[in-house]
Order: sequence, then C-alpha cells, then structure tokens
Amino acid sequence: MKTYLDCLPCFLNQALKTGRIVTSEEKILRKIIDQVMENLINIPLDAPPPKIAQTVYRTIKSITGNEDPYSTIKRKQNEVALGLYPEFKEMVIHSEDQLLFALKLAIGGNIIDLGAQREIKDIKKEILQTLSAPLTINDYKGFRRSINNSKLLLYLGDNAGEIVFDSILIEQLKKIDHLKIVFAVREKPIINDATMEDAKFVGIDKHAEVISNGSDAPATVLSECSTEFSDLFHKADMIIAKGQGNYESLSEENKNIFFLLKVKCPVVASHLNAKVGDTVLKRQSGEIRRPDHGSRC
Amino acid sequence: MKTYLDCLPCFLNQALKTGRIVTSEEKILRKIIDQVMENLINIPLDAPPPKIAQTVYRTIKSITGNEDPYSTIKRKQNEVALGLYPEFKEMVIHSEDQLLFALKLAIGGNIIDLGAQREIKDIKKEILQTLSAPLTINDYKGFRRSINNSKLLLYLGDNAGEIVFDSILIEQLKKIDHLKIVFAVREKPIINDATMEDAKFVGIDKHAEVISNGSDAPATVLSECSTEFSDLFHKADMIIAKGQGNYESLSEENKNIFFLLKVKCPVVASHLNAKVGDTVLKRQSGEIRRPDHGSRC
Repeated sequence: MKTYLDCLPCFLNQALKTGRIVTSEEKILRKIIDQVMENLINIPLDAPPPKIAQTVYRTIKSITGNEDPYSTIKRKQNEVALGLYPEFKEMVIHSEDQLLFALKLAIGGNIIDLGAQREIKDIKKEILQTLSAPLTINDYKGFRRSINNSKLLLYLGDNAGEIVFDSILIEQLKKIDHLKIVFAVREKPIINDATMEDAKFVGIDKHAEVISNGSDAPATVLSECSTEFSDLFHKADMIIAKGQGNYESLSEENKNIFFLLKVKCPVVASHLNAKVGDTVLKRQSGEIRRPDHGSRC
Repeated sequence: MKTYLDCLPCFLNQALKTGRIVTSEEKILRKIIDQVMENLINIPLDAPPPKIAQTVYRTIKSITGNEDPYSTIKRKQNEVALGLYPEFKEMVIHSEDQLLFALKLAIGGNIIDLGAQREIKDIKKEILQTLSAPLTINDYKGFRRSINNSKLLLYLGDNAGEIVFDSILIEQLKKIDHLKIVFAVREKPIINDATMEDAKFVGIDKHAEVISNGSDAPATVLSECSTEFSDLFHKADMIIAKGQGNYESLSEENKNIFFLLKVKCPVVASHLNAKVGDTVLKRQSGEIRRPDHGSRC
C-alpha cells in the first residue's frame, strides 16, 4: 500500500506525540516538527507509510538522543497483558472453537498500540468486545485450510503487550504437529513495536523460535530486512502478519499471507473497504491491488 | 492566544480538506501540502492560529486559482439555517428568558463550521442539544449588566448559516432602546466565514448595520483590519465575538468582550479550561492570560 496524502499530517501528529514522551521542551519539539516537515516535502509516496514513518522516528531519535522513547510504556504494556494472560487463556480453553477464539483474541490484542495511557480495564474491555462480536472480514475457512497444508509458518509480530495474545494463539497453533512456527520481531526499538527483548520478557520464545527481521521500520519492509529473514519469508508456506504496519507494508506481496488486525485509521480502513474499529482476518488475495494515485485512498 | 505546535498538523489537515473541495487531482493536492509545510517551517508561533491559517488558505487559493472554495457549501449552510429560522424563532418567543435562549441559540449555531456534509437534521439536533443543557461557561449575569450599560455593541460574526441564529439574537438585543448594534463580517471569502454577501443573503442587514472588518483572516486579527473597523472596535462599549477564530485572535485584547462559541478543538479547549463540545458565554477577564510557551496548551 502506498502512502496517502492523509498520512502526512498524521506523521506530524505522531512526531509531536512521541516527542512529548521524551521532552516537554518546546524548542526541541519545534525542531522535531520542522525537521519532519522538511523531510516530508517532496518525499515520494510510492513507499508504504511505515517506510516514511521510519524516517520520522529516526528524526525524533536523532534530535532527542533517545533511542527508545517508548521503553517504559512498552514494559507496562507487556506487564498489563501478562496480567490478563491467565484469564484469557482460560477462556480459550473453554471456548467451542479454540483456534477461532485464539485468533480473535490475537486480533483484539492489536488494540494495544499507541494508546499508552489506556487503563488495564479498558484494554480488557476492548478485547472482550472483539471476542463477543463476529470478525468484520473473516477468512477463517481459508486460514484453517492453509494451516493444514503448511509446514513452515512465519508469524510477524506487532506491538509490545499484544505479543502476549500472539503467544496464546501460537500455543494453539503448536498443537498442529506438522507446523513449525517462527515468530519475528523488529531489530531495534521503533514506537511500541515488539523487539527480541519484549518477546523474551513475555516468554514467547518458549513456544516458537523468535527471530529479528533485521529492520527498525514499524512494519515488514522487505527491502530493509536481513537476508536471513527474507529467505525465511520466501520459504514460509504461510505468513501471519499482525497489525496495520505489516498490512501496509505487505498488502502487495504475492504470498500466502493472513493479515490479523484491528483497523485504526481511515486510510487503512478505506484500503480494506472497512471501517475504523473493524476486526480483520484477511487472506492476501491472488489479485494484488494497485494503488490508485488519482483518488483519495 | 498564540499558535501551538498541535495546530501545525491541523493546518495540514485543513489544507487537504479544503484542497479536496476544489480538486481531486493528486498532483495539485500534493503541491498544496508541500507548499503549506514549506511555509510552516520556522514560522513564528506568537501569532494566533487564524493568522497562520490565513497564509494556509491563501496558498490554497493561489495554487488552485479558486478564490472561494466554500462558496457552494456556504450557500447551502445559509439555506439550511434559514429553513430552521421560523421554528427556532418561535422557540425564542415562547421561552422563559428570551435573551438567554437567543444567546444559547447563537452559541448552538456555532456548530455550523466546516461540517460541510452535515445533514439538516444533525444541525437541528445539535442546536437542540445546546438549548437543552446549561452553558458550560456562563457569564450571563455579566452579559445582562453589560448590555444595560452599553450604547454601542459590535457583534463579530463567524460562519455562514450560523449568522441566521446571530440574527435572531440581534432581534432580541434590538429591543434594548439605547443599544446601537453593528454586525461585522470578513472582507473576503475565507473558509466558510460569513462575508457581506452572506449577511445580505440571510437578511441580517435588516436588523443591524453590517460592516466588513477589512480582512481575509478567519478571525479578527486587529493589525489586519481596516481603520474604520478598528476605530469602531475601540469605540464600542461591548463586543460579542462569535466562534473559535475570534476567541483565538482576541483572547488577549483588553476590551469588554463576550465570547460565544462551541469548543471544537483540544487546543482551544485547554486554553479555556474546557472540553471539546463545551458551550461558552465567556466574558473577557480583566487579567489577560499570557501564553505559556513552555508547556502544552
């Protein structure tokens, strides 16, 4: 998916929000905003939004000298999600279709994004809402067929905290004997995306091999990933891609990908023919959609 | 009120929204966004937001060649509001405190801002909500005292459509024999702000003298206004200033101003110690609040 004009003001808002986590000094925040605007002028929009977001967050890091603005928030998100683990794990065990329930739980967990100030009860409440309603886009049948025919499953993680719910899904998928599961994280901290440290903190490495994708984009921008990761990506029979960033960066890849996400912005909503708030289990379609440069996304 | 960093992404969003009213050509829209970003880099933030907005909208006009992107929308807003006039006028007549009711109606009418796609029933519904609840900030007693002691009242209009409800308030104020009322509009089209053409279209000139403020800012930026207007501003015993733009541009003027508005953005909300959606009848305080450059507004 290409970057849309609507993404540009959004990048500025993200820069301001992230800058404020690091500092309240108006001069530094102004420097960030000005530098981001300078970078955005004339920037080609053919790349997916996370590729441009990468340059935005690098600017913040370089101006503030803070390599991981979200580190405290991420830690809290992991702890909150771990606190919810026993209850949700129990719900999976007692559900009628454990795999579907775990899938919906992993999609619900995608609500833990930048909402740093969210209370625990809100996260729980929102996940419960996802669990109680049908998925808006639902390729579950195709998903079931695909896992039965796959040997190597590559699972692309998204955010800290959320990976606890990915872990519950992986525990379900592990029951399929012929399936080897590899879980991928970002190489370096970027927003609240999960890194190797987060994966180990929540113990996902006990259930799957965990690898880094070699990149600090908040997504899976293949041209930026390590050779090891890219080889695995192309070798995998099936890919689970969590969250908007992975959707934005892989929506045109001709692979057997299942996108699991909650829709959080109007641009992605429009690209998916969905609405903000919708829950998505979407198989990559055979036809790859080409962006229409002449219209609003 | 100074411009806050949060206003910068908002200006980009406004530019995109307004650009799209004029054209769907991606290249032109991109040119607008890039030019606006170029203008915003290093721009001093001491000026109120409408002063910077003025440069944003001038950029859109200059790139698209369209001097009045909102003309069709404004016409529709005037027609919709005129359609609601008889019903609301009747409600004023049958209300217990006609002046207070008309004030609340004028504040409720401030909902007609950029919501170009709003349906008639939504506008009516939102105004009825304002009428049924107490004002959040309420200096009505001071307002009553002030009109009793004033001879010249300058009424600063805001948006097309909304001025129909200003007209109803002016019809109430006209009953006070000693009060001369002058209604001011923008000199040139800017967003959906009311101009002389709009004032005449809705017939407000039948109830008050209507003058232009001589400026194309979406507010009352005194340094930009005509001498005739400025003289009147300083001579007036009392000023009614409608909407956020007039608040932003006059919040530090040492005059007997009553701000009537619905709060529509977090920056103005914070400056007023209020919330988005709040309804405000606020007397300019004796102490003029100086912006705090070190903190988020």
